[in-house]
Amino acid sequence: MFVYKFPTRYYEADPMGVIHHSEYIRYFELGRDRWMESLGYGLDKCQAQGLVFPVVKLECRYLKSLRFGETVTVTVQLREFGGAKAVFEQQVLGDDGSVRAEGTVAVGFIDSNAGRICRCPAELAEIFKQQINN
Amino acid sequence: MFVYKFPTRYYEADPMGVIHHSEYIRYFELGRDRWMESLGYGLDKCQAQGLVFPVVKLECRYLKSLRFGETVTVTVQLREFGGAKAVFEQQVLGDDGSVRAEGTVAVGFIDSNAGRICRCPAELAEIFKQQINN
Amino acid sequence: MFVYKFPTRYYEADPMGVIHHSEYIRYFELGRDRWMESLGYGLDKCQAQGLVFPVVKLECRYLKSLRFGETVTVTVQLREFGGAKAVFEQQVLGDDGSVRAEGTVAVGFIDSNAGRICRCPAELAEIFKQQINN
Amino acid sequence: MFVYKFPTRYYEADPMGVIHHSEYIRYFELGRDRWMESLGYGLDKCQAQGLVFPVVKLECRYLKSLRFGETVTVTVQLREFGGAKAVFEQQVLGDDGSVRAEGTVAVGFIDSNAGRICRCPAELAEIFKQQINN
Repeated sequence: MFVYKFPTRYYEADPMGVIHHSEYIRYFELGRDRWMESLGYGLDKCQAQGLVFPVVKLECRYLKSLRFGETVTVTVQLREFGGAKAVFEQQVLGDDGSVRAEGTVAVGFIDSNAGRICRCPAELAEIFKQQINN
Repeated sequence: MFVYKFPTRYYEADPMGVIHHSEYIRYFELGRDRWMESLGYGLDKCQAQGLVFPVVKLECRYLKSLRFGETVTVTVQLREFGGAKAVFEQQVLGDDGSVRAEGTVAVGFIDSNAGRICRCPAELAEIFKQQINN
Repeated sequence: MFVYKFPTRYYEADPMGVIHHSEYIRYFELGRDRWMESLGYGLDKCQAQGLVFPVVKLECRYLKSLRFGETVTVTVQLREFGGAKAVFEQQVLGDDGSVRAEGTVAVGFIDSNAGRICRCPAELAEIFKQQINN
Repeated sequence: MFVYKFPTRYYEADPMGVIHHSEYIRYFELGRDRWMESLGYGLDKCQAQGLVFPVVKLECRYLKSLRFGETVTVTVQLREFGGAKAVFEQQVLGDDGSVRAEGTVAVGFIDSNAGRICRCPAELAEIFKQQINN
């Protein structure tokens, strides 16, 4: 399981002093980007090669609030990979190690030069296969 | 069905020129705020009275991208209401009237003065009951 | 003077319940986009033609806070235009019509196809000249 | 000079693939928060004690774009401190160490319990004095 930590930011907190629910969705993406980067495939490099990963479906359950000032831990686990889609399970944990939210994010693959859905390139597909449930 | 329209914003678009998937989650909330406002219960008024509506669960399916420059139409339909939880179905439509994303958002009720989960106040519960599937 | 109104959004407010200072910078841009749109040159259309307007300098003075729930009024006035740069004065007003922040934003012109700074195209330059101090 | 590094995020980039100008303003704040944290006064702790630091004025000059995928370096230098106001000079640097933007940010002090402007508490004032031009 891949883990990435970073501080919450003041503007991410809402009038209740807790991190806005939309920010968790962004934390999930940041986690996936850092995981890809750790595999040598940061989203920026993929994008430069014309490969982008649009989110096609997401679910998130919010269990407990996360306050401004806490350090976020976001986790990334690849659960399914089928050539045209990858499904991730992700969590956001707070300072005390408790889970604040957990979600499932499905992404597709787009060839941005052709402007259409594509299959995951072979080299990356191989990496994804090795990473399932890792 | 309640409908609210507004222009996309430049900073909401990502390097592909399309609105980032986290923004749809924000559009959904803006739609619920405007719907509440139309019923005389804007989120700001509720908050001033110590009532907040934390999102406890959300799902979103992304069907087609929304480009910067399009006018967003966000819809709000209350599907379930049970005293301690309200469930909304929402859509985001683009310039051509096609659905770009659809989601389900469940919110709870918190008494921010007491700092804990509460039941929806009676007056608002009455309004919610009348609005189901409206 | 061009004026555009819209509701504040919940996620834009910080733990003090007031709109985060970075959002005013975004309101200024939204105002310029709507002003351009009113002139037939929305930022999306310009971008589609390969013309973008990077901010090269900005200043903002924050006079009084803006609370979530208020309707924002953003103003746009073109003060200077010199072929390679345009300078705008902008304000953000709240529900009571008082000025909450005022700023100056200088933008340049970039030909995104060539990937470099350019002069403002003649047709748009003509419009800008007519709009100075309007 | 205090320095804080972190990766750019995908949603911070605009359709040109570069970080949106409003995000630099947020990077500046994140830098100040991390600097305060390093001094034992994170913004969250100050806020918990009823002390907040509203931005009263800011200026930013954008020199060169920052692309998604780059690591951001944000710098923080306290230039002036006078009891009721602190003025910071800050920079954003990219992967190659070149300055992409530089700004000046003035903050005031608010006693959030009393709801009004206050002088900086003595203990923190002492720390600020030691940090000037550090």
